[in-house]
Amino acid sequence: MPPGAPRAAVVLSGNELLDGRTRDTNGAFVCDDLSRRGVKVTELLTVADDRKRLSATLRHALAGDPDLVVVGGGLGTTHDDLTAECLAEVLGVPLEEDPQALTWVEERVRIVAERRHLDYRETFDLARRQAKLPAGSSPVPPAGVAPGIAARAGRTRIYAYPGVPYEFQQMWLETAAALEREQFFPDVVVRIVRVFGVGELQVGPVIDALPHDLVELGINVGGGEVVVRIRHRRDAGAQSQADALVSALEARVPVYSTDGRTVDEIVAGELRGRGLRLAVAESCTGGLLGTRITARPGSSDYFAGGVISYADQAKMDLLEVPAGMLAQYGAVSEEVARAMAEGARAALDADYALSLTGVAGPDGGTAEKPVGLVYLGCAGPDGTQVRRGSFPGDRDSVRMFATTSALHLLRRALPA
Amino acid sequence: MPPGAPRAAVVLSGNELLDGRTRDTNGAFVCDDLSRRGVKVTELLTVADDRKRLSATLRHALAGDPDLVVVGGGLGTTHDDLTAECLAEVLGVPLEEDPQALTWVEERVRIVAERRHLDYRETFDLARRQAKLPAGSSPVPPAGVAPGIAARAGRTRIYAYPGVPYEFQQMWLETAAALEREQFFPDVVVRIVRVFGVGELQVGPVIDALPHDLVELGINVGGGEVVVRIRHRRDAGAQSQADALVSALEARVPVYSTDGRTVDEIVAGELRGRGLRLAVAESCTGGLLGTRITARPGSSDYFAGGVISYADQAKMDLLEVPAGMLAQYGAVSEEVARAMAEGARAALDADYALSLTGVAGPDGGTAEKPVGLVYLGCAGPDGTQVRRGSFPGDRDSVRMFATTSALHLLRRALPA
Repeated sequence: MPPGAPRAAVVLSGNELLDGRTRDTNGAFVCDDLSRRGVKVTELLTVADDRKRLSATLRHALAGDPDLVVVGGGLGTTHDDLTAECLAEVLGVPLEEDPQALTWVEERVRIVAERRHLDYRETFDLARRQAKLPAGSSPVPPAGVAPGIAARAGRTRIYAYPGVPYEFQQMWLETAAALEREQFFPDVVVRIVRVFGVGELQVGPVIDALPHDLVELGINVGGGEVVVRIRHRRDAGAQSQADALVSALEARVPVYSTDGRTVDEIVAGELRGRGLRLAVAESCTGGLLGTRITARPGSSDYFAGGVISYADQAKMDLLEVPAGMLAQYGAVSEEVARAMAEGARAALDADYALSLTGVAGPDGGTAEKPVGLVYLGCAGPDGTQVRRGSFPGDRDSVRMFATTSALHLLRRALPA
Repeated sequence: MPPGAPRAAVVLSGNELLDGRTRDTNGAFVCDDLSRRGVKVTELLTVADDRKRLSATLRHALAGDPDLVVVGGGLGTTHDDLTAECLAEVLGVPLEEDPQALTWVEERVRIVAERRHLDYRETFDLARRQAKLPAGSSPVPPAGVAPGIAARAGRTRIYAYPGVPYEFQQMWLETAAALEREQFFPDVVVRIVRVFGVGELQVGPVIDALPHDLVELGINVGGGEVVVRIRHRRDAGAQSQADALVSALEARVPVYSTDGRTVDEIVAGELRGRGLRLAVAESCTGGLLGTRITARPGSSDYFAGGVISYADQAKMDLLEVPAGMLAQYGAVSEEVARAMAEGARAALDADYALSLTGVAGPDGGTAEKPVGLVYLGCAGPDGTQVRRGSFPGDRDSVRMFATTSALHLLRRALPA
């Protein structure tokens, strides 16, 4: 981060994050978001639901004199939920019931009680403690039942939210929008360059060869892509270093995005913009490509649907892959990938169709068709292309790489 | 964790873990592993590559007087690698080159230089700093180039490893094996009870009503389920408290698993065990149910495949949902969910078929059919059942809840 950037600490509370039950999503989310907004996160502190340790950790976070402390978790209804209490202790103030928070809790409990057929009074009695805040702090409107807490410790702003991911994330984004309006975030430019088809060893030297002392660089590798993140203050010197880096990358490695857009976003935008409809035929990925495409709201504008042709019979019945072809070449073959893509395009009356058939592992690999081998097909108005991919890692990794590659195949096939 | 369990703190250093580039894997790995071995992890502290903050964080971890501190990262060759230095500072000792560590670094550099065609001398000069340890500590054999560090601070054992995941994980497992031989870990039993169909508010009171001072309880809520984890020492008193808790839960709330198995695992096991085949018909979930089912290796034994009937036309063409039904009731309706399930069962020649049609949001909701409304169908040899679900949260959350509910619908429909 450029010098002088605001600093933040993130504190998460929850035994479930420390005993192998749950993998953190809130911390990763808020660190990424803060970072994009030009804030340097100096620590992400995850702590058990233990009064002494949570208070000590909040004190430790504040001792670094950050501009911002974001707290997640511990605002529920059970005796394990200690955030409000520990925050009050650390701030040296009592807990008080806040009238606005109480109104929100009442409203939300009414909805939950109705939806789940619970007794309102009983539920409210349990939830009422969520309206207690450290004196002098303000409640943040809840996304679920529990309100958040906005407090100050000297110059440090503190925001606490419940740990349920969609509540935490939605409430943080609302706070961030308010901070944005206050111009809390620095004027930082973040450029994200995405490269598909080469590795870090090809990308690194392009960057090392150019001056980059006025920008902060982060290189990340994952899912078959290399992502270069360039951050700098909005001034002419830094801007020109960043421009030179982006141009060099575009000239020397297969950059497909210089504005951070992922292949998922690009393909969605192209299909929508051109009024084209897509279908899928998935074997080894079992629906993952469809899941990725439909993760985006509004995908019904361009996604017709697909066939999960896991069994050979499904390939024959729903995609009209000939039985003889399956017998001759096997389900994991160029021929079958082609037939699946063409079959899906016809069956779903789509402009384009993607197909995947491969060996996701860990079993089922042979010398000739090892784990990680996937054939990808793309059928369109100008014909059908098939690629052979060989993807590393475990089952999840192979399936993720393969669907990313399929989206790139479509990106390249779409009319320019 | 039961009273008296050893306590651990984990410290990870690395800017890449805090700026959205990389998601932590080492912390999740070691927390899970420690937890299975009966150690209570009280905090997981991720800190930027900053001398002051890393030293402060190590001090904070030691201040909790844990039995164990595991440190990951910051043992590389660059100026950002500060772990040995900060550890020496916190322990109040100088850094000294360790002869054993130096031998290991020499050996490993020789291998790396040869493999990557690097100059040995130049590479060794860069790597030599990895042989410097805080005075009085011992080197841990490297999995890559950098040795780890084993130190003591009072009664606290400290182990530091490089952050490269396979190095960190392999070196930790070797340390853990040595600790195991010393009987550092307690003899602990872990029981996991899964509940579907009620919330935390119904589960909490069942537990609160019974003695549980000899066990450690963790309650976790997610995807429409409540998971209760009960851990205790292997002795008669704790065992009987745990048994009583499990029995009470079984009597009072809809427990579906007392051995930790998820609904995904149970359904897979039942289908395989009975030689039954499953199909899916997915609208709003776009393939997510198929993705979950096929995430399991060997799922081709019982999963025939499915149809992602995202567009109405796909529902008609591939699942034979009547056009008139779609016009009369709309795609999100009990009738269409039923027809989709029956259509998928026929089209894929399966014993059972699950269907999902709903409003995943954030747009597309109406007063009558709000965001979160999903109809779930299950067609089988004894007929078809349809359930109406109303799922909270954002698009991802609705889709995850809905697919979990569909798996439970199947679990209940399968012959006893």
